[in-house]
Amino acid sequence: MIKITFPDKSVREFPEPLTGLEIARSISNSLAKEVLAVTVDGKIWDLTRTISHDASVKLHTWDDPEGKEAFWHSSAHLMAEAIEQIYPGTKFGIGPSIETGFYYDIDLPGGRQLAEKDLQQIEKKMVELARQNNAIVRREISKAEALELFTQKNDELKLELINELEDGTISVYEQGNFTDLCRGPHLPHTGYIKAIKLTSIAGAYWRGSENNRMLTRVYGVTFPKQKMLGEYLTMLEEAKKRDHRKIGREMELFTFSEAVGQGLPLWLPKGAQLRMQLEEFLKKIQKRYNYEQVITPHIGDVKLYKISGHYEKYGKDSFHTITTPAEGEEYMLKPMNCPHHCEIYKSKPRSYKDLPVRMAEFGTVYRYEQSGELHGLTRVRGFTQDDAHIFCRPDQLKDEFKKVIDIIFIIFKALHFDDYIAQISLRDKENSEKYIGTVENWNKAEQAIIEACDEKGLKTTIEPGEAAFYGPKLDFMVRDALGRSWQLGTIQVDYNLPERFNLEYIGADDNRHQPVMIHRAPFGSLERFVAVLIEHTAGKFPLWLAPEQVVLLPISEKYNEYAQKVLNFLNIYDIRTIIDDRNEKIGRKIRDNELKRIPYMLIVGEQEAESDTVSVRRQGHGDKGVMTIKEFAEMILAEIKDQQ
Amino acid sequence: MIKITFPDKSVREFPEPLTGLEIARSISNSLAKEVLAVTVDGKIWDLTRTISHDASVKLHTWDDPEGKEAFWHSSAHLMAEAIEQIYPGTKFGIGPSIETGFYYDIDLPGGRQLAEKDLQQIEKKMVELARQNNAIVRREISKAEALELFTQKNDELKLELINELEDGTISVYEQGNFTDLCRGPHLPHTGYIKAIKLTSIAGAYWRGSENNRMLTRVYGVTFPKQKMLGEYLTMLEEAKKRDHRKIGREMELFTFSEAVGQGLPLWLPKGAQLRMQLEEFLKKIQKRYNYEQVITPHIGDVKLYKISGHYEKYGKDSFHTITTPAEGEEYMLKPMNCPHHCEIYKSKPRSYKDLPVRMAEFGTVYRYEQSGELHGLTRVRGFTQDDAHIFCRPDQLKDEFKKVIDIIFIIFKALHFDDYIAQISLRDKENSEKYIGTVENWNKAEQAIIEACDEKGLKTTIEPGEAAFYGPKLDFMVRDALGRSWQLGTIQVDYNLPERFNLEYIGADDNRHQPVMIHRAPFGSLERFVAVLIEHTAGKFPLWLAPEQVVLLPISEKYNEYAQKVLNFLNIYDIRTIIDDRNEKIGRKIRDNELKRIPYMLIVGEQEAESDTVSVRRQGHGDKGVMTIKEFAEMILAEIKDQQ
Repeated sequence: MIKITFPDKSVREFPEPLTGLEIARSISNSLAKEVLAVTVDGKIWDLTRTISHDASVKLHTWDDPEGKEAFWHSSAHLMAEAIEQIYPGTKFGIGPSIETGFYYDIDLPGGRQLAEKDLQQIEKKMVELARQNNAIVRREISKAEALELFTQKNDELKLELINELEDGTISVYEQGNFTDLCRGPHLPHTGYIKAIKLTSIAGAYWRGSENNRMLTRVYGVTFPKQKMLGEYLTMLEEAKKRDHRKIGREMELFTFSEAVGQGLPLWLPKGAQLRMQLEEFLKKIQKRYNYEQVITPHIGDVKLYKISGHYEKYGKDSFHTITTPAEGEEYMLKPMNCPHHCEIYKSKPRSYKDLPVRMAEFGTVYRYEQSGELHGLTRVRGFTQDDAHIFCRPDQLKDEFKKVIDIIFIIFKALHFDDYIAQISLRDKENSEKYIGTVENWNKAEQAIIEACDEKGLKTTIEPGEAAFYGPKLDFMVRDALGRSWQLGTIQVDYNLPERFNLEYIGADDNRHQPVMIHRAPFGSLERFVAVLIEHTAGKFPLWLAPEQVVLLPISEKYNEYAQKVLNFLNIYDIRTIIDDRNEKIGRKIRDNELKRIPYMLIVGEQEAESDTVSVRRQGHGDKGVMTIKEFAEMILAEIKDQQ
Repeated sequence: MIKITFPDKSVREFPEPLTGLEIARSISNSLAKEVLAVTVDGKIWDLTRTISHDASVKLHTWDDPEGKEAFWHSSAHLMAEAIEQIYPGTKFGIGPSIETGFYYDIDLPGGRQLAEKDLQQIEKKMVELARQNNAIVRREISKAEALELFTQKNDELKLELINELEDGTISVYEQGNFTDLCRGPHLPHTGYIKAIKLTSIAGAYWRGSENNRMLTRVYGVTFPKQKMLGEYLTMLEEAKKRDHRKIGREMELFTFSEAVGQGLPLWLPKGAQLRMQLEEFLKKIQKRYNYEQVITPHIGDVKLYKISGHYEKYGKDSFHTITTPAEGEEYMLKPMNCPHHCEIYKSKPRSYKDLPVRMAEFGTVYRYEQSGELHGLTRVRGFTQDDAHIFCRPDQLKDEFKKVIDIIFIIFKALHFDDYIAQISLRDKENSEKYIGTVENWNKAEQAIIEACDEKGLKTTIEPGEAAFYGPKLDFMVRDALGRSWQLGTIQVDYNLPERFNLEYIGADDNRHQPVMIHRAPFGSLERFVAVLIEHTAGKFPLWLAPEQVVLLPISEKYNEYAQKVLNFLNIYDIRTIIDDRNEKIGRKIRDNELKRIPYMLIVGEQEAESDTVSVRRQGHGDKGVMTIKEFAEMILAEIKDQQ
């Protein structure tokens, strides 16, 4: 009798050993069609592997990362099989699944390079092999057997990998005539793979080291349905149009300069306006929630970061330290704001009545990234966190958590991120020695987070073992207009820094106590957030946030003066307005200004000038008719107010 | 016949050689009593030195720095004479006049140290010697004579100095029995010195080097009238009370932390509020004047600073460069924002129609200062400039200058700096090779500045030869409530950076032209400005700027709830309000809150709670009577509006 426990704690008994696929089938045929992999006692298995003991089991479909991983991993094997058939003698490095799709690093015989049209041929072969529905079979073999197998294949890349493995842990997967060294898991057979697209080719050093030979990395993506590939390709095209680097250039939001340095954004006037608007927006909310703004320097003595532990963490691989003409002084670009805030906390004695202290700063931090890792505003070397640290008593934790969740909700609403999920990361209770802070405090904190989310009606997933060593946390993932996920907003409990900085408050009992610290950054960083916002909105920002809200288009130069009058009127209400006073046809002006993604276009000519009116076009809504300047101002102000 | 030309270009002829004092007497006896030194053909002379050739002459009284310098320099000699009489065998280092007063570095016989009471004895002796009206006589002597003289006096300090002088350039000054090696100039006799105060004693290495022996530095200050000393001492006492470091601590505006590092201020919530209020204020004005905000990183590749020339200027003596894990990269903490702004200017092509471009940033820069030079917020290692760079055509320079002057006027008015002077620094026309930029452009720029000041009705002094090599400038000096001068606000023309960065615009003629750049910072730096503002106002900031504008004092805990109601009402209008809800007597609450320098105190008790009123006390104006909450809100909002 095999006892299978499901994630919902329900238990089913089976008379004899069976596979994950059979379990799925025992539930429903449609599930059996959807399932791609199975987690058995915490380890991911092939669906066709036999479970011969009592176990807890989770079945994975395409909707789970585990399901996609097996799917794309098998697709990498399928691609390798196709390549081996077309180019016999090819050597294979590694071929993992990645965030979207898979790749394989290969070394073609005779130093051959792949071209675009070669990819089409490989795709075609893959389709052919997939249609054969070849079973993918796992086989555990000895190290000697493995060495022999790949010596026969004359694949020194795989031999190098095998040599580093321990005997007794080695498995291979076979399909048709193809065998690959692999830990798995894989799909039951190749027929699952219905839609195939090889997307690009790049060079990649064997095992990531410049000292090794350069291999060819072939990227691809596959789907269980043809329609999904179509949607994916459309999404890719749309993503390309929405690339924040492209829109940032078109809208003149930010730029980079080679002389200033890579990964160090220069915010152009319109981008700075957008960023300051976001900062003001958050400042206002934070004021309502009794945060206090502070301002701290961008460097600190290495002493500070030795206390905080950041020196150890960022020391070697980050920007090097800054020495001074006088000896014995050594500074660091700040990689985090928290040590500075701890020093402010310590600048005066605190009583239990003073807590919580909520210290906020738009703090620019600097962390070195390799130049190859940099990407627009999403991966930079200097970025500004919308940082705050809450120093509170343990009994205040839940309330503070709820308030931070409120703030994040307000932001998501104002910025039209309607689709998000939240993940609670807890400690691994079986390895409690890994964590700093008392068990009592951890219990309290974890419970506080779970209850806070519950009371706020926030749907969460709980991930035991994912907490940092210094405290549990809550992460928000938003899904953008293209369905892509972005991590935004983290609320992190910290027992470590209060300990390291020796922070304290005098309790009601007149004794010294240690406060708990919460790190939180709803935007994460302004750079990354603006990038996400650009791609989410395609640069069509909500009205309240748009760097320019209104553009006036005089029909001819004769009406430039009237346009200026309208602008002056709108300026009184802080409505950000510009005039396109070029000597161009109105059609041209409309087309050019559409690119700027300004929410309102006001066309003014003789009729408008005579009647103190404007002809209004709303971005995405077309013609809104003629209205007086005052009516227009009132309408736009109401719309702005409504959005925040 | 001796022809004497005065600063106003008037000329007087005298039959025979005569002294500066005699020239003064020829004008008026009262001037002769006031005059302290004379500039003859650009060199400062003793009043008693005979002028035997045609010369341009300027007479200096106490109101001129040159007059004070002679006065205090003679006072240093007088102190040395007194010390020599009391402690024969004392050796004398150097004894210059300083900004306020003078000092002398001395080495007392037998390693004797001075105590406070010794200073009194020296003062007494100085008064006695001053009353003798001993003539101070200049004598030019040969190097051999000088060496003999100080060998006799056994003063190896002076001998070391003499050894470094060239024969034919050496002079001594004698009074009574005292002789000192000195370049001069000096007062005619010791009787000018009517009021004497020795202020402090400090250690000082001979010639500033740690390798030399430690001397005793005695500081003093003297005046031509007893009353002036009284006023000075009162001012000193008041300055001590207003020390921004003391008030900054009391009001919790800023702090420093040893772990963060010296000279790196941490802005506490109230200080950050004050600073942000100043930033918002300036931003609003700048917006009105069509400035655009940008945001740039706090570091830049050394390449950038090699282009700008700052690497050469700040390289060695500043914070050292920042290297990275990848080779070949080297960054600098930015000592100035202008190079970044030049890169933004270059980020797109500019036409003559686009100019002026006015780029503003509250940019934090880092410059290394020796730890001994650091002082509160006035001398720091990291500070935030209210920086802007105007890129304009040469023909726009005057207009832009006028607009910047307007902005500075608005700021001075809102912050109650009513007493200021302005100085125009022009090039030295006789050394035009020292300057970058064409003569034509310099002529234009200098004329533009002079005319702009003129048209704005700004009283200026003009200092030829004081311009930077890259352009003329206008500086503002404000006099604070204690009569001390502070340099605030500079408008600097720059031909250098446009040249170095190869900036250009396309002119109406379709050719490439170089824009002119104006650097301007009305506050200078927010750190220094806040320090000056604290000392100017003694922490009693104008209402609109006060970090906390209103404090509510409930008569007893029973009225805390009503106080909260009033606070909520005032919060709606963004009136920054706090409650002192401690369980203390009202008298104690008033006294404690006076220290916080909050403009309005509202006392609330039974009567107020029943009638929805508050009892209002205005800082510095006392009781303002009872008014309704609404009346109070309206009054305070009107006052704030009126101030900006």
